[in-house]
Amino acid sequence: MTSALFDPIFGATAIDAATDDRAWLGALCEVETALARACTRAGLIDLGTALEIGAAADDLGASDPAELGRQAEASGNPVIPLVTALRAAVRERVGADAAAAVHLGATSQDILDTAAMLVCSRALGVVVAELRDCADHAAALARAHRDTVMAGRTLLQHALPTTFGALAAVWGTGLDRAVARVTATRAILPVQLGGAAGTLAALHPHGFDVLAALADELDLREPAGVWHTERGIVAELAGVLGAAAVAVAKPATDVVLLAQTELGELREGRPGGSSSMPHKRNPIAAITARAAAAQAPGYVATLLANGAHELQRGAGPWHAEWVALVGLLRCVGGATSRLRTCLTGLEVDLDAMRRNLGPDSVDVGHAGDLVDRYLDRRR
Amino acid sequence: MTSALFDPIFGATAIDAATDDRAWLGALCEVETALARACTRAGLIDLGTALEIGAAADDLGASDPAELGRQAEASGNPVIPLVTALRAAVRERVGADAAAAVHLGATSQDILDTAAMLVCSRALGVVVAELRDCADHAAALARAHRDTVMAGRTLLQHALPTTFGALAAVWGTGLDRAVARVTATRAILPVQLGGAAGTLAALHPHGFDVLAALADELDLREPAGVWHTERGIVAELAGVLGAAAVAVAKPATDVVLLAQTELGELREGRPGGSSSMPHKRNPIAAITARAAAAQAPGYVATLLANGAHELQRGAGPWHAEWVALVGLLRCVGGATSRLRTCLTGLEVDLDAMRRNLGPDSVDVGHAGDLVDRYLDRRR
Amino acid sequence: MTSALFDPIFGATAIDAATDDRAWLGALCEVETALARACTRAGLIDLGTALEIGAAADDLGASDPAELGRQAEASGNPVIPLVTALRAAVRERVGADAAAAVHLGATSQDILDTAAMLVCSRALGVVVAELRDCADHAAALARAHRDTVMAGRTLLQHALPTTFGALAAVWGTGLDRAVARVTATRAILPVQLGGAAGTLAALHPHGFDVLAALADELDLREPAGVWHTERGIVAELAGVLGAAAVAVAKPATDVVLLAQTELGELREGRPGGSSSMPHKRNPIAAITARAAAAQAPGYVATLLANGAHELQRGAGPWHAEWVALVGLLRCVGGATSRLRTCLTGLEVDLDAMRRNLGPDSVDVGHAGDLVDRYLDRRR
Amino acid sequence: MTSALFDPIFGATAIDAATDDRAWLGALCEVETALARACTRAGLIDLGTALEIGAAADDLGASDPAELGRQAEASGNPVIPLVTALRAAVRERVGADAAAAVHLGATSQDILDTAAMLVCSRALGVVVAELRDCADHAAALARAHRDTVMAGRTLLQHALPTTFGALAAVWGTGLDRAVARVTATRAILPVQLGGAAGTLAALHPHGFDVLAALADELDLREPAGVWHTERGIVAELAGVLGAAAVAVAKPATDVVLLAQTELGELREGRPGGSSSMPHKRNPIAAITARAAAAQAPGYVATLLANGAHELQRGAGPWHAEWVALVGLLRCVGGATSRLRTCLTGLEVDLDAMRRNLGPDSVDVGHAGDLVDRYLDRRR
Repeated sequence: MTSALFDPIFGATAIDAATDDRAWLGALCEVETALARACTRAGLIDLGTALEIGAAADDLGASDPAELGRQAEASGNPVIPLVTALRAAVRERVGADAAAAVHLGATSQDILDTAAMLVCSRALGVVVAELRDCADHAAALARAHRDTVMAGRTLLQHALPTTFGALAAVWGTGLDRAVARVTATRAILPVQLGGAAGTLAALHPHGFDVLAALADELDLREPAGVWHTERGIVAELAGVLGAAAVAVAKPATDVVLLAQTELGELREGRPGGSSSMPHKRNPIAAITARAAAAQAPGYVATLLANGAHELQRGAGPWHAEWVALVGLLRCVGGATSRLRTCLTGLEVDLDAMRRNLGPDSVDVGHAGDLVDRYLDRRR
Repeated sequence: MTSALFDPIFGATAIDAATDDRAWLGALCEVETALARACTRAGLIDLGTALEIGAAADDLGASDPAELGRQAEASGNPVIPLVTALRAAVRERVGADAAAAVHLGATSQDILDTAAMLVCSRALGVVVAELRDCADHAAALARAHRDTVMAGRTLLQHALPTTFGALAAVWGTGLDRAVARVTATRAILPVQLGGAAGTLAALHPHGFDVLAALADELDLREPAGVWHTERGIVAELAGVLGAAAVAVAKPATDVVLLAQTELGELREGRPGGSSSMPHKRNPIAAITARAAAAQAPGYVATLLANGAHELQRGAGPWHAEWVALVGLLRCVGGATSRLRTCLTGLEVDLDAMRRNLGPDSVDVGHAGDLVDRYLDRRR
Repeated sequence: MTSALFDPIFGATAIDAATDDRAWLGALCEVETALARACTRAGLIDLGTALEIGAAADDLGASDPAELGRQAEASGNPVIPLVTALRAAVRERVGADAAAAVHLGATSQDILDTAAMLVCSRALGVVVAELRDCADHAAALARAHRDTVMAGRTLLQHALPTTFGALAAVWGTGLDRAVARVTATRAILPVQLGGAAGTLAALHPHGFDVLAALADELDLREPAGVWHTERGIVAELAGVLGAAAVAVAKPATDVVLLAQTELGELREGRPGGSSSMPHKRNPIAAITARAAAAQAPGYVATLLANGAHELQRGAGPWHAEWVALVGLLRCVGGATSRLRTCLTGLEVDLDAMRRNLGPDSVDVGHAGDLVDRYLDRRR
Repeated sequence: MTSALFDPIFGATAIDAATDDRAWLGALCEVETALARACTRAGLIDLGTALEIGAAADDLGASDPAELGRQAEASGNPVIPLVTALRAAVRERVGADAAAAVHLGATSQDILDTAAMLVCSRALGVVVAELRDCADHAAALARAHRDTVMAGRTLLQHALPTTFGALAAVWGTGLDRAVARVTATRAILPVQLGGAAGTLAALHPHGFDVLAALADELDLREPAGVWHTERGIVAELAGVLGAAAVAVAKPATDVVLLAQTELGELREGRPGGSSSMPHKRNPIAAITARAAAAQAPGYVATLLANGAHELQRGAGPWHAEWVALVGLLRCVGGATSRLRTCLTGLEVDLDAMRRNLGPDSVDVGHAGDLVDRYLDRRR
């Protein structure tokens, strides 16, 4: 999922700390801790034990993910060796009784799904912040260039004139929408707790109390039910992130087009060079934003194609989600980060815009009004 | 997009009238009519002319789509020959002045995008109705089988027991969510009106009045701005329909699995036969629901990959939306229709469920409570 | 799958007759006829009966596909009602004994898979012919413009000069490769014959004789085994067609870019107009070729995601292939047809190429040699 | 691209060394070395300089990829800082003249594309070896169980009987095909050399000599021309790997189904456990093989959707290939590795097969002959 060589190019550095192996391991351990606390609140575990579990989980959360990865191969998910290690650590600290309180009533999917939602929540926080920055840049461009006339181009042919402000308002509208949608989905990410077969059997009759407490501990939502195999939230995340990628790819594409040598209307503030042509001024942030965003549709398709999980736990579809979800978060976060770089210090060549427009009419209709409307909506 | 041979198998018959060539032609003509009426409300066209345009558009809307299709090849979209034909018809009816009022201030994308939203609105109406039927069936099964014990199966291996009601509640939760999401997206479908370069230049200073009136005429939403190349709504439609396909595929998959010969826990009311084995009782509605739903991720990926439209009109990405959007509507609508058939009269073999569970414990934990919670939420 | 309104725009008219409902119905009936003949050659059916089956199948093959479609809903595939109808027709012609010889030893998947290969074979014939035409156009452009200097553009920025011939050679190389690959895959399309469970049980011990004769009758290949659930050939078709779409999209994209107003280096012979701007000269064939080709990756993903068919017959994945395969054939055939239109009469503006290049060096290195090498390889 | 936490679960460990950051950095440096040697063979660089370049490249190839990654952000690809570093190292070793010989006549895409082909060649070597192992396991199962009768299941319903050998032969046929296809594509991977605009201008008139020598140095193929923007080979890699994923997913799916509690016909040699149910025997290698293979269609769609590179260098599509290609190699290699684990020591429960079949007929037709044919073809 991570590549020290390629991630910086595609902006994934921005979202790295929220999605890498350490983030996952940390999240898994946080969930075990939160579960112990939730059980305490429901009267199932005494507070001292929960504190010991939390301390042991903290230690484990700071250990080497590679070790856990190796142990996870045999069982097919990292929670099984994690629980083994956590129980051993707690046993060593306070004895066998306390060890039995680890992972109480849970199945590995409960821990992994909840950790995934924690990872998503944090990663989406980064994505939203980056999207918001991009949206603000677009708004600033729209405001500054409300009346900057340029050629309108439909099917890449000159049509009637428009303004650069109106184009930036189009970018901004898409980015604002993405901010709103990602924020809304982020706000509904649920914890998972169902136990071995999704009936909360091992916690009966305290299951719902523990569930509610778990959500409270982790600042996630209490779900409608057990969603071991009702993956609507994952499909929704996929759709929202796929749409965010579109919102990012649109301005990136326009920058690349308007920066073409013959057009020369836009220029990145820190364009890229070339290994063979020192004179090149490549809009490389826009180019790599496009490339990063272009990864999204494939991940979305993978998540949707693996959305129907069999009976009480998917035999493949569930496992297929983990890396696809991370890949999607990273490429959208990365694309957004690259777009932010692109828009920061974007240079607008007013002369080129005027020159390319030629002696055509400069009746831009409602272009200015469209910018005003857009800016009004943002207030 | 349509196939008289294959559509019935995949349930697309249900959504046919809302999405076929006639539906599109009709919608295109309705939009031209609505535009003329909207211009009348803004004082740009006299009422008599608008009525004549409407009458001519009605005629055209009932003509052969194939003729328009042939004419559309040269210009790359059906609106251009449609406007030519409509102008000719109005000229013949009432003269050249009236003909000039046809398509006033619009560009072909305005008409096509708005017609697409009309088509989507009607098709989503069908999809929601079918989804709701499926959801109601799931709820009825959950209620009826609140306490019907069966084996819980994780990774397709026996885990702890659960109830069929709890499983049906999982189905229903996903379907209810799909109903809510599709309904919400349906409610925000906007009209499009921007003119040649998205500035509403030809309608200035009446552009926003016409825009508002157009939305009102067609019972669609007034958009934030001109979305010629801000395709967030299309990406959102893609995501929501992709998620709905997941909600449908989940119960279909479970029915296929629980109907396996060795399990025999479910049976469709009207199973399919075989050309070589008369004894077969294939859960064919579930099977074809899965097959139809399986088309969705590819269409979603296509729509997302074509989401970044160049500058003021996409030079390929826009055109790429039309058939992909229809394909997506049809496969989701079709899958839902097939699932409805599957769930209608679904037979539950209580003995088989009990027998397969074996002498294992029948502690189903909170299974009944989960059903109650689910049913409560539906009220 | 077909749309009289949209197909002409996306070139699908070219491939219509090879892939529409009538083509499928005809192919299904041809396979039943060929099976009867093959059984005759293996001594299982007398010649007179085979001839009667063939005559009845011919009649049925010319009937209304919609009727069969309606009947197919209940069983989930069109072969089951087809066999019923064919048996009834043969019974009426020559009696019950002959009717029993219909569909001898086959299962519906045998007929449908073989018919699909027939449809593919014919459709690929169209695709190859179109691709070859495009490749020839590219070669003619490479030859004519071997020394036509133009700006080389990397990342859409001026780099060093090249020649239009060298660019056309790049187009041609991709198209030639697509011709070669599609032709090679077309040559290995197999018949299917396995009977109810893929063991050729009902034809034992004559199974392999009938299989060989069936392949011979239909001019398809004898397969390695029974491929009811070994869908390598479908995956291979998907990959080859997906790659062909890339080969088509590349020149279409370049034409759209080089036809931009500011560049003006290429112009389609019959450009498209606009409903609002009579002066527009849109490279509409290239634009719609791009849009058609852009459908391909989604279909490829659908076919690959449904490639693992369960045990002896896929419970959904098999059914999911039919429309996706047709959709893929149609979009690739359509894109290629549109590209042919684009390249036919493509106008090259030598002055614009020279002007855009500017006073830069005109050292084009091996550009001419690259053209010569490419043309040599084609001989 | 890599995850120490998740890779072992999905088998990517097997292909790690061939595809990770170090493999890429090493390959990039090998290409610079090979280019220097090729230039020596063409008489453009003296041997001593080439040896110094090689020595410096070796050092650089063993350095920290993260450092290069950070430097690559500004230019959008790792070759630009690599060349800077390599020139500095050579300058320090032997002076400015020698430094000028570094990267002679090349552009960064030449180095990156060639390195990508090297990485692919080595990774495909791993994939082929794993696939071949899987195929051999399938063949051994087919041989051993030529006459092991079991229920044939179509649409997951009992049909007629077959043998487990016949099913294993189906698995093996698909795997053998994948071996053949991947091997064939591996054998045609080309080097890239075109210089700044794809005309080999800086090497004129020695361009083709250097090209041929470069291919020879790296044991890759001399390409038909410059394929900077003719990405047929990437599309072909995508298709072939996508098809290989299907060949792997098929047996994995069947194992999961036949291992279901009620069927119990197959059992993995080292099944996975559960965090909550110690009695579970999950076919975890098959499950994770499915999950890994399920990533492939999305990557294939991404590569195909980014196949049309603009003019002389793709402004996004090129960059989009790198991580998608690695992702695809890794998921296919990983899935294959997991399948190998699954098939190694797979336990066949003859009693369960016989019991599930029931008192039905045991006429398995040509099942044995199909196995014999399959085994004959392998010789």
